[in-house]
Amino acid sequence: MTTIVSVEVSDVRFPTSVDLDGSDAMNKDGDYSAAYVVIRTDDPRLSGFGFTFTIGRGNDVCVLAARLRGRPLVGRTVAEVTGDLGAVYRDLASDSQLRWLGPDKGVEHLALAAVMNAVWDLAARAAGKPLWRLLTDMTPTELADAADLSYLSDVLTREEAIGLLTERAPTRDRRIAELTATGYPCYTTSAGWLGYSDAKLRRLCQEAVDSGYRHIKLKVGGNLEDDIRRLRIAREVIGYGDARLMIDANQVWDVPEAIAWVRALAPFEPLWIEEPTSPDDILGHAAIRRAVAPIGVATGEHGMNRVLFKQLFQAEAIDYCQLDAARLASVNEVIAVLLMAAKFGVPVCPHAGGVGLCELVQHLSVFDYVAVSGSLEGRVTEYVDHLHEHFTDPCVVRDGAYVLPSAPGYSAELHPASVAAYRYPDGAYWAGRGGA
Amino acid sequence: MTTIVSVEVSDVRFPTSVDLDGSDAMNKDGDYSAAYVVIRTDDPRLSGFGFTFTIGRGNDVCVLAARLRGRPLVGRTVAEVTGDLGAVYRDLASDSQLRWLGPDKGVEHLALAAVMNAVWDLAARAAGKPLWRLLTDMTPTELADAADLSYLSDVLTREEAIGLLTERAPTRDRRIAELTATGYPCYTTSAGWLGYSDAKLRRLCQEAVDSGYRHIKLKVGGNLEDDIRRLRIAREVIGYGDARLMIDANQVWDVPEAIAWVRALAPFEPLWIEEPTSPDDILGHAAIRRAVAPIGVATGEHGMNRVLFKQLFQAEAIDYCQLDAARLASVNEVIAVLLMAAKFGVPVCPHAGGVGLCELVQHLSVFDYVAVSGSLEGRVTEYVDHLHEHFTDPCVVRDGAYVLPSAPGYSAELHPASVAAYRYPDGAYWAGRGGA
Repeated sequence: MTTIVSVEVSDVRFPTSVDLDGSDAMNKDGDYSAAYVVIRTDDPRLSGFGFTFTIGRGNDVCVLAARLRGRPLVGRTVAEVTGDLGAVYRDLASDSQLRWLGPDKGVEHLALAAVMNAVWDLAARAAGKPLWRLLTDMTPTELADAADLSYLSDVLTREEAIGLLTERAPTRDRRIAELTATGYPCYTTSAGWLGYSDAKLRRLCQEAVDSGYRHIKLKVGGNLEDDIRRLRIAREVIGYGDARLMIDANQVWDVPEAIAWVRALAPFEPLWIEEPTSPDDILGHAAIRRAVAPIGVATGEHGMNRVLFKQLFQAEAIDYCQLDAARLASVNEVIAVLLMAAKFGVPVCPHAGGVGLCELVQHLSVFDYVAVSGSLEGRVTEYVDHLHEHFTDPCVVRDGAYVLPSAPGYSAELHPASVAAYRYPDGAYWAGRGGA
Repeated sequence: MTTIVSVEVSDVRFPTSVDLDGSDAMNKDGDYSAAYVVIRTDDPRLSGFGFTFTIGRGNDVCVLAARLRGRPLVGRTVAEVTGDLGAVYRDLASDSQLRWLGPDKGVEHLALAAVMNAVWDLAARAAGKPLWRLLTDMTPTELADAADLSYLSDVLTREEAIGLLTERAPTRDRRIAELTATGYPCYTTSAGWLGYSDAKLRRLCQEAVDSGYRHIKLKVGGNLEDDIRRLRIAREVIGYGDARLMIDANQVWDVPEAIAWVRALAPFEPLWIEEPTSPDDILGHAAIRRAVAPIGVATGEHGMNRVLFKQLFQAEAIDYCQLDAARLASVNEVIAVLLMAAKFGVPVCPHAGGVGLCELVQHLSVFDYVAVSGSLEGRVTEYVDHLHEHFTDPCVVRDGAYVLPSAPGYSAELHPASVAAYRYPDGAYWAGRGGA
């Protein structure tokens, strides 16, 4: 029986701060990083790869947390672990001493995400399927067993979850065929980082349009006059009508400030304002949403757990749910959020970018459409064209849509050469710079 | 000029799991621990001591995070740091790479609490005052400058904060004199841990009554029949009427389950149900509160930050605010929560116990009464009789009340011998057991 022999966690950091890729009003100089987990088995052909995403300092804290969290996996058989993905999740999550450090949030939750992402990757590889296919091949009951439905029964019972999944089951194949032909629609943020010049912004917007994108997102919230000028440039390039412009404030505002600022940008007809305030402020998002309609409110990349999303839905606080594949505790918690979103009729437009988030979320969006929401209306998944070259199975985007991944796994494996070069502080890149 | 030369962080763990001290329905076997910070200066007579509290595994993760968080303090003068305690807090908190790992929650927030608790201790020692006195000697404007009011302006503006503090200022001395005579009222949890036998429960309840306590708290949520039997025993000992019985479920229930369970315990007339469900579930607490009234709802020991408490107040979700001195990011964030609680008329009954939390919260409760709330109605601060012997300035409780601390500082210093014995894994206690 194939057995897990080690759970290795590496601190991998890419020096993105050099070019201000990823700069926004809150995060001015991130070094995109991964606490990168490799689950090794005694079969050299079978490993599981996963990670959580951070932006530099503190990635070592996540690495240490992931090592602690992954330790109970060592010595278990692959069959045991992948045979009940709900049980292994609950077992790892239930360590009461580690739970105290959250619960279900912050570093410990990121670490659980990293470890469980690797477990899901392992399960998909063991089954010889891409993750989305592993999920769409599971029965409604199997999916409900895998999902973390704890603390959710006031809005979604297990029976309701199974009922919703069962309703979609007979038509799964039709939607798989559809996505195989069209891909899953995406939008690009590559154009709009706050650190880019007006000329670069204009050029990148044009390139996005030329590449087939109909949605473009810009960072805002640094300075109102700058925002007005940049939104004008973007609209000059993409036009109005069918072309969608989204704006993202990365949490820099208090609630009253958010309302005033977004109203000032309303003439540019943004589709949504993303992260207008603290990601924890459910009632604040609800207040902003009421005040800026018909501009939509989006949040979720810092949405810490399923209990937060439950309340965002209950309070009618958001128009778009931007869950994050490396902040929620892996597929187990993502399934729960997808189910609630479907029940409340809120489209899920996952956050991506960073390191490898695009690789992960493409699987989740396909699963969402095929097995949970059954709809593409209002759905568009983020895409950022950075760092894909470090992955062995990089995502492919064509005509503004993710092409369905076909290799077994969760597309989470980094090239060993990339890990060797960017491991912090001893990889070739960092050692040459004396660490940091 | 006295200058900070190092920020040392130690992993200190006490083997409380051996006697099931601290056992409850969620946390069955904690080893009470501290990520313990010592800020050393070039004056050997002046250091600052602080910590965050954990229950064992993962304390090392907090230690690593606190080391990263405290690094920018080294090389600064004591005058600079203690002269603007709001500025140093904002500077440490604003590291955007570390912020990504929360924001404002989990391990990173616990680590910020540990470091800033040591900074406040340093400031109080430098001023030669106990922390509560340092705070009650600050002007309303100085307090507002120190407080973290970010993301709160929709419910509390800076002007309102100053107004509220100014209203209380002329009568501060009267309340200090009153508390100096009476102490600050407290209740005990020492009787009611879930792992204790019925006989031990009965004996400890009697001892609590004999010691002058009029409030007793029991852990519930393991098994309903057990809870009914234990509550009956407690009421047999303490009686009804003036004697208050509180119950604490430590987050084990979903919302519907909480409502049903608490209703089943209603005949024992609990004053409050504490932590009935996920600490993140603002709307869930509000629903439970509406359903179980007149039994009060209390939560806060896992209340991750000021934005959560803001919403608990806005949603009228709680009757008692149980903020935690080592989970909120130190005094800076505590002031903000105390101000909001005062505005909304919610009594603050801080969480304590663990390692050294009693030592900390006595200062906060005195400050709350003297400078913020101006009321003792419904207020009672937790007290647990564990581990005080490890502190150089342990809290003193007499006749069910905390005696006002008088030594300079935040009462956060551990005996060096205790650190040497219980440092993990190399202290004398743990090394003898081969770590764990």
